[in-house]
Amino acid sequence: MEKIFIYDTTLRDGAQTEGISYSLQDKISIAKRLDSFGVDFIEGGWPYSNPKDTEFFAYFRKHPLRNAHLVPFGSTAHPARPAHTDKNLTSLLKSGTEYVTIFGKTWDLQVKEVLRIGLDDNLRIIRESVAFLKKHGKKVFYDAEHFFTGYKANPEYAIKTILAALDAGAHLVIFCDTNGGTLPWEITRIAQEVREVISLGNFGMHCHNDTGMAVANSLACIEEGCVHIQGTMNGYGERCGNTDLVTVLGALVLKMGCHVSCEKNMGQLTELSYFVSEVSNMIHHDATPFVGRSAFAHKGGIHIDAMLKNPLAYEHIDPLLVGNHRRFVVSELAGKSSLVLKAKELAFDLDKKSPRAKKIHKLIQDLEAQGYQFEAAEASFKLLLEREFRKYKKFFELLGFRVIVEKRDDGRLISEATIKIKVKGVLRHSASEGDGPVNALDSALRHALRDFYPALSKMHLSDFKVRVLDAKEGTAAKVRVLIESQDEKESWTTIGVSGNVIEASYNALADSIEYKLLKDVKANA
Amino acid sequence: MEKIFIYDTTLRDGAQTEGISYSLQDKISIAKRLDSFGVDFIEGGWPYSNPKDTEFFAYFRKHPLRNAHLVPFGSTAHPARPAHTDKNLTSLLKSGTEYVTIFGKTWDLQVKEVLRIGLDDNLRIIRESVAFLKKHGKKVFYDAEHFFTGYKANPEYAIKTILAALDAGAHLVIFCDTNGGTLPWEITRIAQEVREVISLGNFGMHCHNDTGMAVANSLACIEEGCVHIQGTMNGYGERCGNTDLVTVLGALVLKMGCHVSCEKNMGQLTELSYFVSEVSNMIHHDATPFVGRSAFAHKGGIHIDAMLKNPLAYEHIDPLLVGNHRRFVVSELAGKSSLVLKAKELAFDLDKKSPRAKKIHKLIQDLEAQGYQFEAAEASFKLLLEREFRKYKKFFELLGFRVIVEKRDDGRLISEATIKIKVKGVLRHSASEGDGPVNALDSALRHALRDFYPALSKMHLSDFKVRVLDAKEGTAAKVRVLIESQDEKESWTTIGVSGNVIEASYNALADSIEYKLLKDVKANA
Repeated sequence: MEKIFIYDTTLRDGAQTEGISYSLQDKISIAKRLDSFGVDFIEGGWPYSNPKDTEFFAYFRKHPLRNAHLVPFGSTAHPARPAHTDKNLTSLLKSGTEYVTIFGKTWDLQVKEVLRIGLDDNLRIIRESVAFLKKHGKKVFYDAEHFFTGYKANPEYAIKTILAALDAGAHLVIFCDTNGGTLPWEITRIAQEVREVISLGNFGMHCHNDTGMAVANSLACIEEGCVHIQGTMNGYGERCGNTDLVTVLGALVLKMGCHVSCEKNMGQLTELSYFVSEVSNMIHHDATPFVGRSAFAHKGGIHIDAMLKNPLAYEHIDPLLVGNHRRFVVSELAGKSSLVLKAKELAFDLDKKSPRAKKIHKLIQDLEAQGYQFEAAEASFKLLLEREFRKYKKFFELLGFRVIVEKRDDGRLISEATIKIKVKGVLRHSASEGDGPVNALDSALRHALRDFYPALSKMHLSDFKVRVLDAKEGTAAKVRVLIESQDEKESWTTIGVSGNVIEASYNALADSIEYKLLKDVKANA
Repeated sequence: MEKIFIYDTTLRDGAQTEGISYSLQDKISIAKRLDSFGVDFIEGGWPYSNPKDTEFFAYFRKHPLRNAHLVPFGSTAHPARPAHTDKNLTSLLKSGTEYVTIFGKTWDLQVKEVLRIGLDDNLRIIRESVAFLKKHGKKVFYDAEHFFTGYKANPEYAIKTILAALDAGAHLVIFCDTNGGTLPWEITRIAQEVREVISLGNFGMHCHNDTGMAVANSLACIEEGCVHIQGTMNGYGERCGNTDLVTVLGALVLKMGCHVSCEKNMGQLTELSYFVSEVSNMIHHDATPFVGRSAFAHKGGIHIDAMLKNPLAYEHIDPLLVGNHRRFVVSELAGKSSLVLKAKELAFDLDKKSPRAKKIHKLIQDLEAQGYQFEAAEASFKLLLEREFRKYKKFFELLGFRVIVEKRDDGRLISEATIKIKVKGVLRHSASEGDGPVNALDSALRHALRDFYPALSKMHLSDFKVRVLDAKEGTAAKVRVLIESQDEKESWTTIGVSGNVIEASYNALADSIEYKLLKDVKANA
């Protein structure tokens, strides 16, 4: 199979995601990580439109990347300006990179209604813009915006635009499905028609996910002979996102047998995906193909039985190939054998017929009857096993807490928590205000612990879920709180159940902190 | 285009999602909603494996659905048992439905290693199981487990298994990509090969999303002539999930021009998707195709400019077609017509161009920016309209409250609330303990009101849900509380949002009580 080039635009198109707002430092740290992972190209930003992006390129002129080519993004020249006076184009030159990317119009309707110029003028602009950059020694990626939509409207004209770019010396033309509305078999048909005019070895693919097809569309093009895929980590991007390069890499390397520069690092794919979600401050979705926390999690009883006989039955690849791992979910749907398996997965050797297995099984059943649900709270499950197996010393002991929420007559709202704990024989009594009662309690607890365990500053809560059990009891019902925490390496979930939302939250918080401290002790052992 | 049948397995395969745990009531409410939306088939569960599922079918024998066929799921007979003595098969008959689904083995390796029987024995079991159900008057869907993997390993045998099912009278055979590892062009090739033997009008498709291809694979099969798609709402399911029927419906109806039973209700697609995620207590992902909050959100400056010139530039469909709306992330401009429509539905006559419409629209946008979401809280939405239209007098006025939760040194946990309100000019200051802080507050509020409004004793809270917004902010995040209340006549849902779970709960509680009082006033007017 031919080699496929990976072009990452997390820092440019991915930054358009609603809710993502990268600092310069965020962008630098993601670029370095992508570089060490081994993507071929990193689109760093649009220097003309954004001073932060100009600084970004300046930084890497001083501290060059080791593997990847950094690429600035821009557009073809303004219709009213010759290329050499167009600041958007000249700013690309100033970035000091070997490669640059510009986008231009393919769709006749856009030429007429958005640029408001003649069709031939657009061809001239494409030619002149590419030629100008080429003359200054740049290798040019030409993004053919709305290629498929444009092709469907006017195939002859769409072809003319890409030929204009290639004739002017573009290194590669990228088919863009800009509004994300094209379906895979349309992509295949159009790619085959283009191939009758010019080899697809000159083409790459840039998709959006508005019909959930970005990955399928990108791979469909590779099947037809394209050589380059643009996308983002975790599929970040405007609206429904861009092509998810994480999924693309899994499929390209492990399912299609293609070669990519980063293939030796595929075992880091899961960690890379988490790293970018962490820096982007986005939740990592459990169901993400290849790298999600649930991607190789088995819950159904028959699945678990069949898995024991042959893992191929419900796993299309070995999870270790992408740095993920198999998990057996403890749930009402499975029995004692899944407990034993789950324990084994977590490195506890539990004999199904032992009194210990019986004891733990009973304990879990009792907790589940109270409303605990360990399938979503593996870290709490692991702590439960640790307590049964290793009888380790607790990192701290709760003596009491008080939380006050007051809505005053003047409308002000105050949340305050005090907490009393014993740590390493020392009594600590601390207080904190917060944005709400749980935040105040979290804050007071960390405050009491921080002198003893400075590593806690490296973890933070990333998700917080509350489910009311027996909801028909209304506000007197039991409450299940799930807290997801994250540090720079992984995420974990803990659970607390109580008739009182504050106590349930405290229980989940305490487990979360204990889990972090325990795993650090082990990592340093 | 031919008609495509939609088969929803949210309640069976979707229930395998890590973190989902449906109560019987959850299952019933989802089934009713799917029915009124208009899916063709609802796979309700596996009655043999789960007593909750048996109850589910019993409920619907008493309260039949209006549109959809309910379908129980099971497997072919156990190798060691004749079909008529196999409890798994006989329990399907007991469900009392017109259709049943069973799965059987296609993959020779699984027959040998999981069932541990001969290849011919497996064919016999398939034939006998289907024939048994057929003989008892059932229409049988036969799920050909691992069809594509099996076909790749041994195409002749895979074909024999599906012919065995069809010969024995199966209504339809469903190709299953059970481990989710098949790529779209493989699906297309295999479907075309099967078509040489037998018409694809006999087939449906059931995919898993382990390579991010479930939707693409399902639609690829439809392109080749299959007539039925199985999947789940929001793509719930084990590991990386099943085919997302929400995306499938968007693509089938709006991109491919296929006919489906629910096509007249496509404008409710977004609401349906949110409803199921609420009942499942799962986060609704912003980037979800068609129905995500960001699916038609425009952030980039050039995109917004181009959108104003021609919306087709960055929208592949009109968002209203699926009940979603265009949003500009910097400044919200859209959604006014749906507000007018919704108001009309609630009997408020709102002229789209009136200053009042403008004012309410602005108010809703502000509230939505804070995290309010009225789809799930119609009672609060109605109160908002009442306040704007009728300027009615408030039933009571909050002056302040204080809630204390204390975990004492002896391990006891106390929740106490005090509240100060003004009712009909009278100041009331009351206190109450409770099972938790919200229960204490609810109790104190009712205590203060009961002399003035005795009808409140007739209402109670029937559900209480908490969702954390911007979950990545951890415990400092905003909290959305939904409270469902009920009296002897109806149930209604109200919403409260705050950075503080206690205040959010108070807001939802207060709305809930106000709604009750207002509707009683109207009923007596």
